[in-house]
Amino acid sequence: MNEDFLLMIPGPIPVHPRIFRAMSMKIMPHRGEEFNKLFMEQSERMKKIFKTKNDVFLMAGSGTAAMDAAIANIIQPGDKVLCITSGKFGERFRDIVKAYKGTVVELKYEWGSSINIEDVKKALEKDPSIKAVTMVHNETSTGVRNPVAEIGKIVRSTKALLVVDTISSLGGDNIEVDNWGIDLCASGSQKCIGLPPGMCFISVSQRAWDVIEKTDGTCYYLNLKKYKNNKYKAPYTQPVSMTYGLKEALDIIDEYGLENWIKKHEKLAKATREAAKTLGLKLFPQDETTCSNTVTSIKVPEGIDGQELVKLMRENHGIIIAGGQDHLKGKIIRIGHMGSITKKEIIVTMACLQMTLKDLGYKTELAPILNPISKI
Amino acid sequence: MNEDFLLMIPGPIPVHPRIFRAMSMKIMPHRGEEFNKLFMEQSERMKKIFKTKNDVFLMAGSGTAAMDAAIANIIQPGDKVLCITSGKFGERFRDIVKAYKGTVVELKYEWGSSINIEDVKKALEKDPSIKAVTMVHNETSTGVRNPVAEIGKIVRSTKALLVVDTISSLGGDNIEVDNWGIDLCASGSQKCIGLPPGMCFISVSQRAWDVIEKTDGTCYYLNLKKYKNNKYKAPYTQPVSMTYGLKEALDIIDEYGLENWIKKHEKLAKATREAAKTLGLKLFPQDETTCSNTVTSIKVPEGIDGQELVKLMRENHGIIIAGGQDHLKGKIIRIGHMGSITKKEIIVTMACLQMTLKDLGYKTELAPILNPISKI
Repeated sequence: MNEDFLLMIPGPIPVHPRIFRAMSMKIMPHRGEEFNKLFMEQSERMKKIFKTKNDVFLMAGSGTAAMDAAIANIIQPGDKVLCITSGKFGERFRDIVKAYKGTVVELKYEWGSSINIEDVKKALEKDPSIKAVTMVHNETSTGVRNPVAEIGKIVRSTKALLVVDTISSLGGDNIEVDNWGIDLCASGSQKCIGLPPGMCFISVSQRAWDVIEKTDGTCYYLNLKKYKNNKYKAPYTQPVSMTYGLKEALDIIDEYGLENWIKKHEKLAKATREAAKTLGLKLFPQDETTCSNTVTSIKVPEGIDGQELVKLMRENHGIIIAGGQDHLKGKIIRIGHMGSITKKEIIVTMACLQMTLKDLGYKTELAPILNPISKI
Repeated sequence: MNEDFLLMIPGPIPVHPRIFRAMSMKIMPHRGEEFNKLFMEQSERMKKIFKTKNDVFLMAGSGTAAMDAAIANIIQPGDKVLCITSGKFGERFRDIVKAYKGTVVELKYEWGSSINIEDVKKALEKDPSIKAVTMVHNETSTGVRNPVAEIGKIVRSTKALLVVDTISSLGGDNIEVDNWGIDLCASGSQKCIGLPPGMCFISVSQRAWDVIEKTDGTCYYLNLKKYKNNKYKAPYTQPVSMTYGLKEALDIIDEYGLENWIKKHEKLAKATREAAKTLGLKLFPQDETTCSNTVTSIKVPEGIDGQELVKLMRENHGIIIAGGQDHLKGKIIRIGHMGSITKKEIIVTMACLQMTLKDLGYKTELAPILNPISKI
């Protein structure tokens, strides 16, 4: 395999060599004291990342497994759920609710636009039987950060549970599960935490447990009660190597300090946005104040084929960025700045983006230093 | 972490350094052509291990996730399932059926005993509405191999689907999904395939698809239709590093040749059994011809505390073997011989077992070579 590429998509992300080394440690027995101590310690440490005193479980699975668990454990057929959608992953929650035969009340926004808090308030007032509200904190598909704190305040004044996907923001943006009133917070390993994909995380509030206890749902592998009641908070064989990796990843975050780790993401996001604007490009989110800390979504200029842009970035420069998903294919590009990514990678990515745009006929003046390089 | 131990439990198993190195390769974009080619190739190669032309899917999750998927996709509330149980994992299938509100018809055998084929025949004749039969090929909890081929013949003459757990035998014992008529075969990464835990496998027959298409079940992450319909047979982010590891693990198996890899397991099982019998120990399976190829289950001799035996094996010799589960705690020990384990590890394990038994008062004559070593 040719490993001479730079991965700049919004997850999975380049994994730090320290994490790979940790993951290569000898496999311990998953039911032994030593491993279970290590495992439980990491789930305790994850509470600090989630900023919560709630239970946090680590599971083997993709991030979607945690989203599924968040719904499967609280929904019986017919239960009403308000699903706020403004991108692919908001829609995923809606589809999960449907899979469990919940009744979806959809609050749908155009991809890239902001959520109107008043709409949420009205929807909840209109139908007090709504059992849960689902939303995405950081829409990976659009690069928009949604206002969880504000919506949490509204939801907390009702009986509904707040279910949030923080897969692409946890660790890379401020998330306050307890202060914001998130009852079920689903996240994943392969974004700002810095691990390969394959592990997911979920936090569960007491309010959520009260509902879970009364819900006669259908699930087994993702049954949260089994996790809670297990001595080691893990009823099935844990992903041992990923647990070693998580310890190392959390060590790295601790060395920075969580707030600095988040600030690093914030700076990289700002650098990416400012560089894009300097090139005359437009950000995809309608309101710049909603721009994500972890993925920057940029409109492809008129007359340029976005899929070609992504392809040439890879072929000519070995830089892998993401295009748009679903109806945004070819219309936007997305640059991830998560986990181990540093300013160096942003500089080279934005420089190569400019050169590639120029190659595609976009009018732009290369910096003196890039002028000769672009001809090599 | 102290890595000076030898892991001899029936999974997870010591992972070959080649696999760890492969897993340390740079993360590729999970939706890129190169990764998807690699991913699809491994699922094709897994078909050879399953000996099937059926679809085989690779999922992020523990083996239990594959067991769950095998049930969740075919069972609606009230559907009848014949669950053959003679150990912990047979019972797990029963519990999964209950979780999906299926009606369980249990054919229960004492742990360690064999399944009576005639009982299965009668149960199916008695109730033609039975939609599926669940069983475990290799009961990790008891060290018994169950007769899947024979039961398959009976089930195939009915309308029921045959659902089999091969988690602790796939790769280490002969499994013929097509010839035996297994409709849904669930397996995992961390046993005879040789990977760390965190990936699971499932094969799905056309007969199973016919039922799945008509079943109005409730699942999302584990919904097999979503896997089938996805262009890359993977609707959610794949465990990228585990996929690299799987390629390397299958390369290792190919270098041996699958039949030799299985024969290696068979030889180690025989070596373990013969050594145990030479020590005057009794095998736990009631019928020796049913002894597993991948885990050997041995009765703890009268007057000896099995939990103490396991503890001293670890403390005095750094060898980690497994005890009994549930009601067999303290009564049996289990030695795994899966994946990368060779005869060397069996020799040292059985030698240390003898020394430990002697330390606990068991009457046994150490080999001349062990006599001086045991005093050091």
